[in-house]
Amino acid sequence: MPPLGLLHMRAWASLFNRLLRPSGVVCIREVHFHSQGTRDLSPQQMVVREKILDLVIGCFKRHGAKRLDTPAFELKEMLTEKYGEDSGLIYDLKDQGGELLSLRYDLTVPFARYLAMNKVKKMKRYHVGKVWRRESPTIVQGRYREFCQCDFDIAGQFDPMIPDAECLKIMCEILSGLQLGDFLIKVNDRRILDGMLAVCGVPESKFHAICSSIDKLDKISWNDVRHEMVARKGLAPEVADRIGDYIQCHGGVSLVEEMFQDSILSQNKQAIEGLGDLKLLFEYLTLFGIAEKISFDLSLARGLDYYTGVIYEAVLLQTPAQAEESLNVGSVAAGGRYDGLVGMFDPKGHKVPCVGFSIGVERIFAIVEQRMKTSGQKIRTTETQVFVATPQKNFLHERLKLISELWDAGIKAELLYKNNPKLLTQLHYCEHMGIPLAVIIGEQELKEGVIKLRSVASREEVAIKRENLVAEIQKRLSES
Amino acid sequence: MPPLGLLHMRAWASLFNRLLRPSGVVCIREVHFHSQGTRDLSPQQMVVREKILDLVIGCFKRHGAKRLDTPAFELKEMLTEKYGEDSGLIYDLKDQGGELLSLRYDLTVPFARYLAMNKVKKMKRYHVGKVWRRESPTIVQGRYREFCQCDFDIAGQFDPMIPDAECLKIMCEILSGLQLGDFLIKVNDRRILDGMLAVCGVPESKFHAICSSIDKLDKISWNDVRHEMVARKGLAPEVADRIGDYIQCHGGVSLVEEMFQDSILSQNKQAIEGLGDLKLLFEYLTLFGIAEKISFDLSLARGLDYYTGVIYEAVLLQTPAQAEESLNVGSVAAGGRYDGLVGMFDPKGHKVPCVGFSIGVERIFAIVEQRMKTSGQKIRTTETQVFVATPQKNFLHERLKLISELWDAGIKAELLYKNNPKLLTQLHYCEHMGIPLAVIIGEQELKEGVIKLRSVASREEVAIKRENLVAEIQKRLSES
Repeated sequence: MPPLGLLHMRAWASLFNRLLRPSGVVCIREVHFHSQGTRDLSPQQMVVREKILDLVIGCFKRHGAKRLDTPAFELKEMLTEKYGEDSGLIYDLKDQGGELLSLRYDLTVPFARYLAMNKVKKMKRYHVGKVWRRESPTIVQGRYREFCQCDFDIAGQFDPMIPDAECLKIMCEILSGLQLGDFLIKVNDRRILDGMLAVCGVPESKFHAICSSIDKLDKISWNDVRHEMVARKGLAPEVADRIGDYIQCHGGVSLVEEMFQDSILSQNKQAIEGLGDLKLLFEYLTLFGIAEKISFDLSLARGLDYYTGVIYEAVLLQTPAQAEESLNVGSVAAGGRYDGLVGMFDPKGHKVPCVGFSIGVERIFAIVEQRMKTSGQKIRTTETQVFVATPQKNFLHERLKLISELWDAGIKAELLYKNNPKLLTQLHYCEHMGIPLAVIIGEQELKEGVIKLRSVASREEVAIKRENLVAEIQKRLSES
Repeated sequence: MPPLGLLHMRAWASLFNRLLRPSGVVCIREVHFHSQGTRDLSPQQMVVREKILDLVIGCFKRHGAKRLDTPAFELKEMLTEKYGEDSGLIYDLKDQGGELLSLRYDLTVPFARYLAMNKVKKMKRYHVGKVWRRESPTIVQGRYREFCQCDFDIAGQFDPMIPDAECLKIMCEILSGLQLGDFLIKVNDRRILDGMLAVCGVPESKFHAICSSIDKLDKISWNDVRHEMVARKGLAPEVADRIGDYIQCHGGVSLVEEMFQDSILSQNKQAIEGLGDLKLLFEYLTLFGIAEKISFDLSLARGLDYYTGVIYEAVLLQTPAQAEESLNVGSVAAGGRYDGLVGMFDPKGHKVPCVGFSIGVERIFAIVEQRMKTSGQKIRTTETQVFVATPQKNFLHERLKLISELWDAGIKAELLYKNNPKLLTQLHYCEHMGIPLAVIIGEQELKEGVIKLRSVASREEVAIKRENLVAEIQKRLSES
């Protein structure tokens, strides 16, 4: 059977792939990378993810966000002309009749489509879901073609920079809460960027192209970016050099003041607007006590087309430990203001200003998994509290009756699916699975109307009247 | 702009669609059905879903299941020849180079593929995720082309019927826990079904085809099914009638005994095996105290190809209330034993016996949403505990400092994104959103170093020393 033959080869390929990965690369037990660039998530990984997502979602709720969900695929036309150079990474569905569909590339565009379609003018929402991109999967960075995103966005017409400041506050709360080490959030403004390009002499038609070149600065050197601008995007060398002078500037609110004074940049109306908003933003960030986490960085561009104002990107400042592991995670959260996107979906072009961000949870998962791997920490993948055992043969009926009582009382319980398991096998199972309690029933107990309650760790056993068993178990569990 | 024009038409189409739906059909505020057969899920719907999924997942964990996740798309070849007549409903991805891919049709086949690919011989896992089917969306039944499934499966070689009985126990716990009214679980066995078909004179080559005809009995009448068997699938009329006699039989364990005595059926080895297992199953179900919820039903077929043994399907027994609402929900959970599926993915054909089921949560969501709609119950879509207000102009800075303190203390807090909102507007917002507490800061409070804490419901206000505010709020929240 050819399919199975292929699978066989793939299974080996994926196995080799794992064996051959450079050390320090994210790869915990049971990670399987499929040839199609996706992977299964093992119970161990799911436990880590749920813990992290609980913290992220908890923070979104703390800031009064509602939850929204949209379909995995959108009408293809909804996604076109939203992602600039990345549009080629969109997965299309096969035309099987009906509409032309594509898998969502992010959660922002579907949100904008939702607002326009439902004529919603105001909404603070979060969305946790998968997105799909046809990238050549670079597992080294924990990047896959299917990955999870956590988005938080505030839509509506409000007084300037208050929602924007809250977005940055939330990013800080999440990154501090996850204890990923020190981090920095770079901010810039599309208007400052465009203004800078304009005063440097870049023709407006080339703004987007040059932005996406600048956006590559975290991956490739300035020389390579400059080369791309000049050789591939036809920029005059002196123009590229003027850009080079600006984009090496980064600092705090003082840099904002500096740029206000910049004789050339200050001539550009857009840039002045952007700088004015950044000044106000820093005022609010100071009140939130997070100003020192924020860096005004003129080299921050963000590739996507739809940003119109302030943009930001959070990066982890590599601790030595991480550096040793050579775990390159890049940015872990990013976003910005996109005041025009909703209007693109509204039949009458009505605009709804929006600001928001996306947490790159996959990278965060990768870091935490890596840590657990190096620390050799064992993860419990079940929550079973009580194991039902017997030393006797032909006691299945009694075990089933007993475990049924526990389940009905809401206690998490397991037994072995065997008619006559050995007691030792049953107790080993408890220890192996980290189940704290075992209840044991045999001839003797049955006769006396008791159950033996065993603490798996201490191996202490006490006989409990059957009618008191549930209460005693609940007491023990609440104490532990 | 054609896309927007199209969207406009669609927006109206979906609106009309909602207006024209027959009364009693599931449709709560903000449900939008897209022309492509999917829909967005509003915050109200997400709240309902999360409550229901928490209960379902809680039950899965109570039975010691681990969580697994697999990608949205699989290699196309993995899904072929698994779904019988339904294979036509599989969504394929466009061939953009690389592997041919399809969106998953269910969570069972990916689970089997996972077990084979990772050489896992034993696993109790649950999986909550979306699946996609190209059905003509019949919104009346709350059916969409994208929907959520909750699967629980037990893989491994165990003593007969113990895991099978636990699956039925879990289905009962979930359906009782959700308080959906009275329900019944029909059980049958593929071997009994095949044996019956054999003794009725159906050629083996036609078993699958006839099974999927029988499977339609809950949707169309026996006469139509009989017609399909004879006219479309070329069965002799007398053979069809013999089948007709059997499939009207349903009852408890007594019917199992009866069938053992059936002079014709008892001649079939397969049927006898199946009946033997059902007898044992009922023994265990009695110990679990759920036997009266289970009905042995010879008309139960289940369309899918991969079932090999016991099969089951849970149906809600319509309460008069629901009948009035004419809400046709059909089966809400179904599953069975599939001992051959994993082997189809293993290069050496090694088998791993499996049994499990899937909860049709979408239908359950539909029922609960319908209930809330009729009861007129208001759903809170945020969890905000405290609102930060001011009666003063130019007090944004103080509000921002104050709310930041609350957030940092883990309190769920909101404010209005306005520089100078009216106090009345702020208090109305609290009442409208159901926020229980408001903290108010003005000149006076600032001077005295206090904050006014207001209970939104009772409108009582007390001044609290600022340093005691967080503690007092936490006390109030823990009491309420």
